Amino acid sequence: MLITSSSNERIKHARRVREGRERGLVFVEGERLVAECVSSGLKLQACFAARTPSGSQSSMLNSLSCPVFQLADSVLESLSGTVTTQGIIVIAERPFPALSRLFEGAAPLILGLDRVQDPGNLGTLVRSAEAAGVNGLFSFAGSADAYAPKTLRSSMGSAFRLPIMSDVSGLGAVETCRRHGLKAVVATGGASLSHYDYDWRQPTFLILGNEGRGAGAEIMNACDVRIQIPLHAPVESLNVAAAGAAILFEAVRQRR
Amino acid sequence: MLITSSSNERIKHARRVREGRERGLVFVEGERLVAECVSSGLKLQACFAARTPSGSQSSMLNSLSCPVFQLADSVLESLSGTVTTQGIIVIAERPFPALSRLFEGAAPLILGLDRVQDPGNLGTLVRSAEAAGVNGLFSFAGSADAYAPKTLRSSMGSAFRLPIMSDVSGLGAVETCRRHGLKAVVATGGASLSHYDYDWRQPTFLILGNEGRGAGAEIMNACDVRIQIPLHAPVESLNVAAAGAAILFEAVRQRR
Repeated sequence: MLITSSSNERIKHARRVREGRERGLVFVEGERLVAECVSSGLKLQACFAARTPSGSQSSMLNSLSCPVFQLADSVLESLSGTVTTQGIIVIAERPFPALSRLFEGAAPLILGLDRVQDPGNLGTLVRSAEAAGVNGLFSFAGSADAYAPKTLRSSMGSAFRLPIMSDVSGLGAVETCRRHGLKAVVATGGASLSHYDYDWRQPTFLILGNEGRGAGAEIMNACDVRIQIPLHAPVESLNVAAAGAAILFEAVRQRR
Repeated sequence: MLITSSSNERIKHARRVREGRERGLVFVEGERLVAECVSSGLKLQACFAARTPSGSQSSMLNSLSCPVFQLADSVLESLSGTVTTQGIIVIAERPFPALSRLFEGAAPLILGLDRVQDPGNLGTLVRSAEAAGVNGLFSFAGSADAYAPKTLRSSMGSAFRLPIMSDVSGLGAVETCRRHGLKAVVATGGASLSHYDYDWRQPTFLILGNEGRGAGAEIMNACDVRIQIPLHAPVESLNVAAAGAAILFEAVRQRR
């Protein structure tokens, strides 16, 4: 099926998905991300491709379990979220993982993000979290969308695999984790305990806060432990994705 | 002095600085970055400010050691590199640190970046490096400019303080570091030694490579040691700024 008009209803719907206005669906662009999406078992709703796909894209298109629509170049460009279109876009159903997956294993490590707002930072944290063997992620209300196109480009497919609970209440997440026996640990400047001196072999819920303001006061008060990364003066803070990597891979070291 | 035209020669010159076409000069925008620039002792050439500066900006303007030009709003907007102008811009001389500063102390730790191309990643690495007590940075030819406006926004002033040698030959930097007794260590997938098992108390030149392709083959071959961060499958790599933070703060831990 060939679509030649940008005002086609399917194209308008896909654009709404790209803009985050169809919250049950994800807009996945580019051969590599689409492959990760497919291999992660997400349910596909539709695929949009160039009229003359490349060789590797052709074989990918033939293996998809959803209708494939071919787009005129101008339509594909109007739908693409990148400067130069990558020629393949999939609309998939957003994963809704079972909460129990976050608490599997003897000593779960869960990451919580309190209003992390830059999609690049959030995506980078999702990628680092999966790489560090984190069980899953609570993304508190007010954070960037883990499935927005910019976030997905930074998470490189990890968002399709790591269990992510989006748009949750931060206090609720702390309570839930505590009921499952996890300590709630928040990273903040001015804490007396360094992240090296916390025992990461314990079941732990690690919370990182907003880029400019850190975690909110209510969350800070609800946590059991405050930690900080020791920094050489005059630096007062790290980028949140850098801080997350430093802390998560200290946890990995202690858990080896 | 009030400037009301975007085609004023001073404004055209400042725009060239912003675009990186005046390599000896740096374009610094926003109250916080300008304050960091001033306190770091960079030599200022000119300041451009709003016609009606805010109270905190007024006192800053009075303390500057360079001519201050007031700009009509439209001129300020045309010069600003951000969507909403922050009302104050300074043109400063780029710092040219002495090479010897990188080799101070008993066990220098130096960071090398081989064609790291995203300004946000490079700036984040500069910030993490200063926070980890790194002596300085070699930015190899082909990397983003450490003093470009986007990079400066991510480095949050660290670029004004950390000694940075820009646009250097990577092989030359390895040779120079080796002559000073440093081991050249490159981070790469597939290395058999984990970054936890390298002894960071040694004088070390740590090299991180390009976002997609890693460090170049010539650099890899020139290094003494290859390390990798152990990652949970199926993740194959981290964002370079996340990897840098994880490795640098392991070095900090061992050096405590």
